[in-house]
Amino acid sequence: MTNADGNEARASRHGPAESWVDVYVSPPAEERVRAGSLWVFEGEIVRVDAGGGWPEGESLSPGVEARVLGRRGRFLGRGYYNPAANLAVRLLSRQDAPIDEAFWRRRLEAALAWRHQTLPGATAVRLVHGEADLLPGLVVDRYGPVAVVQFLTAGTDARRRLLSALLWDLLQPLGVTGLYERSDVSVRKLEGLEARSGVLQGQVPPEVEIEENGLRFRVDVRGGQKTGYYLDQKLNRARLAAYVKPGERVLDVFCHTGAFALHAAHYGAAQVIGVDSSAAAVAEAGRNAALNGLADRCQFVEANAFDWLREWERKVAAREAAPFGLVILDPPAFAPGRRNVEAALRGYKEINLRALRLVAPGGHLVTASCSHHIQVPLFEEMLRQAAADSGVAAQIVEKRGASPDHPALLSMPETEYLKLFVLRRLG
Amino acid sequence: MTNADGNEARASRHGPAESWVDVYVSPPAEERVRAGSLWVFEGEIVRVDAGGGWPEGESLSPGVEARVLGRRGRFLGRGYYNPAANLAVRLLSRQDAPIDEAFWRRRLEAALAWRHQTLPGATAVRLVHGEADLLPGLVVDRYGPVAVVQFLTAGTDARRRLLSALLWDLLQPLGVTGLYERSDVSVRKLEGLEARSGVLQGQVPPEVEIEENGLRFRVDVRGGQKTGYYLDQKLNRARLAAYVKPGERVLDVFCHTGAFALHAAHYGAAQVIGVDSSAAAVAEAGRNAALNGLADRCQFVEANAFDWLREWERKVAAREAAPFGLVILDPPAFAPGRRNVEAALRGYKEINLRALRLVAPGGHLVTASCSHHIQVPLFEEMLRQAAADSGVAAQIVEKRGASPDHPALLSMPETEYLKLFVLRRLG
Repeated sequence: MTNADGNEARASRHGPAESWVDVYVSPPAEERVRAGSLWVFEGEIVRVDAGGGWPEGESLSPGVEARVLGRRGRFLGRGYYNPAANLAVRLLSRQDAPIDEAFWRRRLEAALAWRHQTLPGATAVRLVHGEADLLPGLVVDRYGPVAVVQFLTAGTDARRRLLSALLWDLLQPLGVTGLYERSDVSVRKLEGLEARSGVLQGQVPPEVEIEENGLRFRVDVRGGQKTGYYLDQKLNRARLAAYVKPGERVLDVFCHTGAFALHAAHYGAAQVIGVDSSAAAVAEAGRNAALNGLADRCQFVEANAFDWLREWERKVAAREAAPFGLVILDPPAFAPGRRNVEAALRGYKEINLRALRLVAPGGHLVTASCSHHIQVPLFEEMLRQAAADSGVAAQIVEKRGASPDHPALLSMPETEYLKLFVLRRLG
Repeated sequence: MTNADGNEARASRHGPAESWVDVYVSPPAEERVRAGSLWVFEGEIVRVDAGGGWPEGESLSPGVEARVLGRRGRFLGRGYYNPAANLAVRLLSRQDAPIDEAFWRRRLEAALAWRHQTLPGATAVRLVHGEADLLPGLVVDRYGPVAVVQFLTAGTDARRRLLSALLWDLLQPLGVTGLYERSDVSVRKLEGLEARSGVLQGQVPPEVEIEENGLRFRVDVRGGQKTGYYLDQKLNRARLAAYVKPGERVLDVFCHTGAFALHAAHYGAAQVIGVDSSAAAVAEAGRNAALNGLADRCQFVEANAFDWLREWERKVAAREAAPFGLVILDPPAFAPGRRNVEAALRGYKEINLRALRLVAPGGHLVTASCSHHIQVPLFEEMLRQAAADSGVAAQIVEKRGASPDHPALLSMPETEYLKLFVLRRLG
């Protein structure tokens, strides 16, 4: 039994709406929270007063409900507190009212209603996107009949039974028949939580299939990366229709299970090469190609992307291979932290420089970064240098971000991550 | 007769491909040009050598063809030179070959081919977008049967007969029956050129109508702002479909001739208010509403946007008026120059702060800036402050730019200008 389960047992004994702690924060934290941040760091906490309803003598459980207070006890909001985490408090509400079942239900309903409005009818969609839905620590992705849930913080982990029950209640009428937990991500270590995964509710079939922009994809909810698929690129993949010229050859580097590659084939590419270092992803990409009747035009290669690009840059330069009409670069985050930014930029520059040389004149490069720390101006300057060094002139044709079911919170730049540029190589 | 006409007369006497000057530039300019810039400033010119084919004793005409050379005579590119302008040289090519009729034809064909690929079938489209099409100083907008041309520099103005003839030749087969010049913009003063407008080729009817996203708009090619319409928002207007809830009320501030407003009505808004300070624009917006059978749901008001927003903020706060489901802010450039950035940011913040208070919870704000000097990070920080000051929590749902017929040149950040965010007000 994890810490979190222990806390859950305790919370249900006292009722989560009945007990909380008062957390007093420093003036800088107060200012940031008042400007819209949902985060308070451990070093910004001035005092924790457990008298605010919390049973005397009982030690604080990770994820305990917290009232957040500033100078002279000014009320700032309610949220949850994890004494064991550096990011100690996450706010949920600006109202001084209990964070009870009705509260969670309203928040989840609001998140679902927004997806229903912006992506009507979508059954492969991110339903809950953490902070940006004012639901920090919670991610829910729907893949057709299955919803995959991540409890990323002690605050949501401590409430997993309640949240699972609410989600189950709200999602069954929409056609969801199973709820699966994928809390097997490293960020949970920062919260003192162990990895956990498994069925939460209903039935989760061994194979799940989704529909995206008229294509079918198998999603491995049990073992795939993150929750099994990357839904944030849905509308960007649909935009390939404008950039694939029928009959062209297309290259998809870091192809994962083939989503961009199959879109390119679907929109008319004569031949698509997908490259990924994961044997499992490459195998799944092949199955997805077959599922859509596109196997004859798609080839998936298990290879290190950097090595592959270097080799093909040489081949194209030596005219052993023809350049591509469209190249897609959708790498994993090279900069997981601020410390990695410089090394990440070197990596991004290398792949983009080589990719630009693989694009035929008049052709396109669709290039993305999902590193939060590589923000748009930095990403653009890296592309500028890659183009200058590769001797390629290019237009910026589009700058895009994540699909609208992955919004950011305006008051928290920390919640932005995905950027995608469409470049066009000039003649 | 303008300077430019004089030069044209001369150029045609000697043939534009036969004579040029050699322009030697400073090391910083050389470095910038080699990294992809097309611009050399007057102060960066080390020497101009008129011996490179230019008739001896003849004074240099604005827009004369120029070979651009760096240290030790290293060839950097070809372009044109205006001795009277601060932005003295614009590069056209990295090849040391004459800028002749065949060159211009290839460049124009490439620009047209790209529009045909990315916006197939569009008859309201920017065909040439200056530097980003490697055609500095030239803008061509097609509005159905009429193409509107702007010669913005001495270099293009001196070649207006050649460029007009080439455009006429290329555009007639596409269904264009008239070419109209709208070189009546203030930037021409920087080149020592006077304003000029009028028919260049064929027939230009008194009224021109275009189709955009299934709607019809009248375009005043003779007297409207810029070339008569703002084509760069076409795909952004289409995105309103995702953000208008049927039956909602919508507000379009700085509505010009009603393009965003009518899209909102078309996508289901029950009532749309458009506000603009130009009586002519408001009248045209009303005619466009009638043209689309949407007049009963659209109301256009001639008013100062700042005053109108202040008044309605008061009304909504006092519950004399209901908030809007969607507010659109598409103002003219508040920061035409770097010096105006601070004042512009105050202006942007004021309108966005008030607009956020006019949006109903769950509703959207679509907010744009076309000021080059207000770049995305600055624009976003301004929005963050506006939201904090207005006490409104909001999501960033989308960040967009100009439609792909208005590309930027990757190597020249100066060519980027339009940014548009979709915000969603949280509960």
